Amino acid sequence: MTQTPKNIAIIGSGLVGSLLAIYLKKLGHSITVFDRRPDIRNITFSGRSINLAMSNRGWNALEHVGIDDEIRKIAIPLDKRAMHVIDQPLYFQKYGKEGEAIWSISRGVLNKKMIDLAEEQGVEFRFEEKVWDVDLPEAKVFTGESEKGEWKEYKYDLIFGCDGAFSRVRHKMQRRSRFDYSQDFIDVGYKELSIPPNADGTHQLDKHSFHIWPRGKFMLIAMPNLDGSFTCTLFLPFEGEISFESLQTEEDAKNFFKEYFPNVRQVIDDLLGDFFKNPTSALVTMKCYPWTYWDKVALVGDSAHAVVPFYGQGMNAGFEDIFVLNELIKVHGDDWHAIFKNYQEKRKPNADAIAELSYRNFIEMSSKTADPKFLLQKKIEKHFASKHPDKWVPAYSRVTFSSRPYAEALAEGDAQENIMQEVMKMPEIEEKWNSIEVEEKMLSLL
Amino acid sequence: MTQTPKNIAIIGSGLVGSLLAIYLKKLGHSITVFDRRPDIRNITFSGRSINLAMSNRGWNALEHVGIDDEIRKIAIPLDKRAMHVIDQPLYFQKYGKEGEAIWSISRGVLNKKMIDLAEEQGVEFRFEEKVWDVDLPEAKVFTGESEKGEWKEYKYDLIFGCDGAFSRVRHKMQRRSRFDYSQDFIDVGYKELSIPPNADGTHQLDKHSFHIWPRGKFMLIAMPNLDGSFTCTLFLPFEGEISFESLQTEEDAKNFFKEYFPNVRQVIDDLLGDFFKNPTSALVTMKCYPWTYWDKVALVGDSAHAVVPFYGQGMNAGFEDIFVLNELIKVHGDDWHAIFKNYQEKRKPNADAIAELSYRNFIEMSSKTADPKFLLQKKIEKHFASKHPDKWVPAYSRVTFSSRPYAEALAEGDAQENIMQEVMKMPEIEEKWNSIEVEEKMLSLL
Repeated sequence: MTQTPKNIAIIGSGLVGSLLAIYLKKLGHSITVFDRRPDIRNITFSGRSINLAMSNRGWNALEHVGIDDEIRKIAIPLDKRAMHVIDQPLYFQKYGKEGEAIWSISRGVLNKKMIDLAEEQGVEFRFEEKVWDVDLPEAKVFTGESEKGEWKEYKYDLIFGCDGAFSRVRHKMQRRSRFDYSQDFIDVGYKELSIPPNADGTHQLDKHSFHIWPRGKFMLIAMPNLDGSFTCTLFLPFEGEISFESLQTEEDAKNFFKEYFPNVRQVIDDLLGDFFKNPTSALVTMKCYPWTYWDKVALVGDSAHAVVPFYGQGMNAGFEDIFVLNELIKVHGDDWHAIFKNYQEKRKPNADAIAELSYRNFIEMSSKTADPKFLLQKKIEKHFASKHPDKWVPAYSRVTFSSRPYAEALAEGDAQENIMQEVMKMPEIEEKWNSIEVEEKMLSLL
Repeated sequence: MTQTPKNIAIIGSGLVGSLLAIYLKKLGHSITVFDRRPDIRNITFSGRSINLAMSNRGWNALEHVGIDDEIRKIAIPLDKRAMHVIDQPLYFQKYGKEGEAIWSISRGVLNKKMIDLAEEQGVEFRFEEKVWDVDLPEAKVFTGESEKGEWKEYKYDLIFGCDGAFSRVRHKMQRRSRFDYSQDFIDVGYKELSIPPNADGTHQLDKHSFHIWPRGKFMLIAMPNLDGSFTCTLFLPFEGEISFESLQTEEDAKNFFKEYFPNVRQVIDDLLGDFFKNPTSALVTMKCYPWTYWDKVALVGDSAHAVVPFYGQGMNAGFEDIFVLNELIKVHGDDWHAIFKNYQEKRKPNADAIAELSYRNFIEMSSKTADPKFLLQKKIEKHFASKHPDKWVPAYSRVTFSSRPYAEALAEGDAQENIMQEVMKMPEIEEKWNSIEVEEKMLSLL
């Protein structure tokens, strides 16, 4: 079905806003993107970003509008985890099958590129124009210097809220009756640190690995950048014995890195400077419903479903929203009421599923990695999967290297967990974990 | 410990705001209560209120400041449910033991009285003064005609947000990082209807009963007023086969009442007029945390924990907040930081518990009352409780006729439910439900 050109406002020029702009522009619509911040292409990036991991869902969405090759040029494939376990030599864990990888991209570099690509298509960007209010039934946008000052009014046919976890557009929808909403913060915060390149511009650590220093209640991760540096993220409880609160002085921080990250201390540039200069950020799961208002307004990406970053799927989920929206546009043509209704009904269960999976990964990383029972279970699963790759697809692969719905990955994961609970009850499982008996038990339960 | 007098603002002149004003005034503080609405004493009440059921927790809080006798004069004790089951004669269920009752009070009448009592104590009320913003660290209140217009600024020592489920004060706290928040609407809405008095001013139905017309997915309730009338509330799904959406015409509504409430149709005055004149309201569970900001701002009542009304505990929980706050003031004196910290830590689990209990009662009423298995279980519990009143206190009594923590009532209820699941598995339980065998089984499981 063809589409009547519409006059569309997108609030937010982040990754989701700029990709949505490209999609809608290609369909023949007139697009204006508003952002309260300055053009990211003219500023130094902020130091509060976790590097992105583009996986299948993200690539699919880029491919569909023919920009995947452009983006691949600024991405580095990571085919394995590099595990920096204390008092053990570094070891590697392959992510998936041969050729499967996640791709490290700097958020800033990617966002600049996406805005360039959108502008090339003819999308108009209005930076440093702050949206303070939205009239939902009339699809009007109100902007101005300050919330209390003079406002400018714009009228559109459609408005998309791509303005992130603390969305103004959603904030307006939230004031209506019967709008379900939740925001839940975890007790762990994060801080960006960085590892500079070698003098010759090469990477100081293996470039094709996602580096992890798991330490139970806290951890450090590092992802490579094109310029030879790594962006590191320290995840640490806000309060408690070892926490952001407890690391007050340079001495505290120095001892902390010395004790827990001995191999990192030498490579982290101006470590203590970063630690005290960069902000400590919070991590939130945000859910809401409905995501749309009649045929006028829709939320896409983090504004509809912000997740904690422990599955590396936040951006991928947002990009998949756009892909699904586009599929529905093909089916329903000009019937935006049907497009929006189907969009939210189709995406909501999947957004809830990736929120749950991401939160569980946080719990797993922060409390289970030291549990021998848990590690044994993972070892049995891995052993079985290697013998029966068609019968046991790990949840990580379903989420990362597939485009099947997140809800399906969650359900399959739960089914596997039920089987493993039975297996773990087998007598002497510690000794016979790789026996035929266990294998047959698992086959019988599948 | 004694208290240094403080200059305190309370936002909201509802039931919780006016009772808190009385408590704090009695401690020697200077109190100003702001409300965006006109003085309720000068207006006709709105027609979107469920009558209130004052129970133990509410009475305790009133008694402590010596106003319980005044309030009892405007309340009617209800010692039983009157069940209007279709095609069955009316029957009664006693609420508790002899002398135990809940008390029906009109929200409007009670609120007027509470404001009178607060004014007598010297509390200042500023009606029709709209609070648009609060400066949390500075404890400043900003008021004005409109959100975008000129604002007046007031500085206080402490601010209490008693401004209900859609609190402006909480709204400001919610914009901060690490503030957990959720609002969940149920699919059922409500509408107020009324039954007028007889010509001689007496009640048309039994005056000392809480009247219920359970109909599975929907129900009608009625509570008596002093003037001989009853305030009725119709709970009905928003959408679906029998719903507010499906009752569009006078004819629809007439047939609905004729079919499902034959004995009510004759007594409800101007039934169809009420139905189409009164608004349809939504029901929300609202949770948040923290409830306080340092030693400056605290949320009390619905602004901190709004619940669905199916346990009749919303106001009682709010009044209990005040009682607990006052106990903590006695302990911590001028240390408002300690008072607020202990207040939120002590009350939050109980607020969550009454939210859960209230929501479960909704599920129970809307989906389980037609289930013969559920009815049998309730019959067994009742039979056992009558033989062992010390060993089996029903959850309803723990919530309604006790001042033990809500969280305890929830936990005890869960423990009872576990026992009953075992009992319901007994063979031929339908036949031997009142046998010694079942009784002994329950005793063994306790």
